[in-house]
Amino acid sequence: MNELRFLEIINKTLDSSSFLGDDCAYLDDFDIFVTQDTLVEDVHFSLYTISPYLLGRKTVSVNLSDLAAALSIPKFILVSLSLPKNTKNFFVSELYRGINDVCREYGVKVVGGDITGSDKVVISICAIGKKTSLFLSSRSKAKKDDYILVTGQFGNSSSGFYALSNFLQAPESLINSHLNPRPRINEALKLASLIDNDIAVMDCSDGLIDALYKISLASMHNLKIDINSVPVSDNLKDFCSFNSLDYKNFVKWGGEDYELLICVPEQTFLKLDKNIFTLIGRVQNKDNHPSVIIKDNTTSEKITKDVFEKNSFNHF
Amino acid sequence: MNELRFLEIINKTLDSSSFLGDDCAYLDDFDIFVTQDTLVEDVHFSLYTISPYLLGRKTVSVNLSDLAAALSIPKFILVSLSLPKNTKNFFVSELYRGINDVCREYGVKVVGGDITGSDKVVISICAIGKKTSLFLSSRSKAKKDDYILVTGQFGNSSSGFYALSNFLQAPESLINSHLNPRPRINEALKLASLIDNDIAVMDCSDGLIDALYKISLASMHNLKIDINSVPVSDNLKDFCSFNSLDYKNFVKWGGEDYELLICVPEQTFLKLDKNIFTLIGRVQNKDNHPSVIIKDNTTSEKITKDVFEKNSFNHF
Repeated sequence: MNELRFLEIINKTLDSSSFLGDDCAYLDDFDIFVTQDTLVEDVHFSLYTISPYLLGRKTVSVNLSDLAAALSIPKFILVSLSLPKNTKNFFVSELYRGINDVCREYGVKVVGGDITGSDKVVISICAIGKKTSLFLSSRSKAKKDDYILVTGQFGNSSSGFYALSNFLQAPESLINSHLNPRPRINEALKLASLIDNDIAVMDCSDGLIDALYKISLASMHNLKIDINSVPVSDNLKDFCSFNSLDYKNFVKWGGEDYELLICVPEQTFLKLDKNIFTLIGRVQNKDNHPSVIIKDNTTSEKITKDVFEKNSFNHF
Repeated sequence: MNELRFLEIINKTLDSSSFLGDDCAYLDDFDIFVTQDTLVEDVHFSLYTISPYLLGRKTVSVNLSDLAAALSIPKFILVSLSLPKNTKNFFVSELYRGINDVCREYGVKVVGGDITGSDKVVISICAIGKKTSLFLSSRSKAKKDDYILVTGQFGNSSSGFYALSNFLQAPESLINSHLNPRPRINEALKLASLIDNDIAVMDCSDGLIDALYKISLASMHNLKIDINSVPVSDNLKDFCSFNSLDYKNFVKWGGEDYELLICVPEQTFLKLDKNIFTLIGRVQNKDNHPSVIIKDNTTSEKITKDVFEKNSFNHF
């Protein structure tokens, strides 16, 4: 049983007026974007590897990342906190110090939420953002010949997580990418100011291939990228080479990079700052059974539904 | 350690621009109300006593109840679902059938959410409502001489829960009140159409005394009610008498009735339908250490901070 199957069941059960698709919903009655994400102890984080302060920061950041992908300015959050009986005061104050710091950095207000008991720490945040552009972003908006771009580097977060989980020494930057990700709000607003059409944007919270495949599926187009164009850090390469690991696995399948994956037409691509947005591929032809093609020097790999479902990060 | 102390810590940690007070937040940038509530398996419900269909209904209803207390028309919800590995398809489809049914009854759309893994079932719903009145409701708005009113009956839900937990036979209506509560949306909209000032409203999700005490504290006024004016069902009295229980305990401290507690000035009280809104008491004088006085025939009980903290329903 996996997340995708559950989503199919949910969409079949709900009235057609309702939907569960993009990470953010746009409510045109109110001109706002809303998103909700939950982090569960021992599924998404371990209290042995993350401090309450950084956990607070990260929980807000991953939600703001979804608003960034919607090209929306974050304004408000609600925090639902489930805590075990033996939770100490300092855990709550440190967690909220982290929440407050990220909120302050992005001009966001905490306006509500609740606290309940539970066996494990569960933090669910609902984030609300303002519309900034006449145009919308959706994973279904990739069009033939669009340029595929990404922000930042890939593989850092998952390799940092790998190091933490396996008690390996690793460069601070990899660990930091995992524990304290930065939502790409400013990059998204830059992008929003330059588009003249709806475009496809996602954050890569579940990995680069995951985002590519979800866009290909929602847009019904094949996507082709060159894996060697994807920005990676020297620290990732060093860490992997030292531990005999293939760094491209972290780049392709490792999640939690919270970088943006963007498909835009040529006229938008030409206006974008290439120091912020890196070209990694192009959208191909329309296809009812779309796939993602990963070029790697002279070889290429085709990510079809089967390959995707076997390899993709499954939260269960 | 309890919820109230955690809230104190949170409010101290957050910038003054932020707050956690009423069950709903009003976002004047967008003219909307938002609320978020989380139900945790074995804290708020047991899968041995509630079906997935009713669990879906209840999770939506308790959130709509918060919007009702804000005198707001519910429009959208987001559903964050955390599920154990072994969750079956039918659980998800039944849960969503329940969610969908309540949403259809009140014209609400499911617009997003996510699914993650966890040890226990955790459902967190964010509900968004539209402003319906020029005036706001807040637990801080009770004023001297206000009439204290309630909708519906009290004690049914907690006695139903008591019966389920202790394997006691009980009238269907008590069990139903617990498993399938009805949010007082229509009553709230009726009320909203008749007010000409900000008023104090809360739902009694954590019990009648809890709501009374929270209003008294936020408004800094003493509240006085006659416990014998609070509507109760014959079924509750029968069940309690048969099992040698004091029904007034369920009425006063039992939670999850999801009825509205309302404080309004005389001119509003006179306009309200007495078949829907029952008078149970009056707001007294201003007080920096406010309390709730419960009159019961010739005796009366004073709920101060200490009594409240000792007796109130604590989710931890």
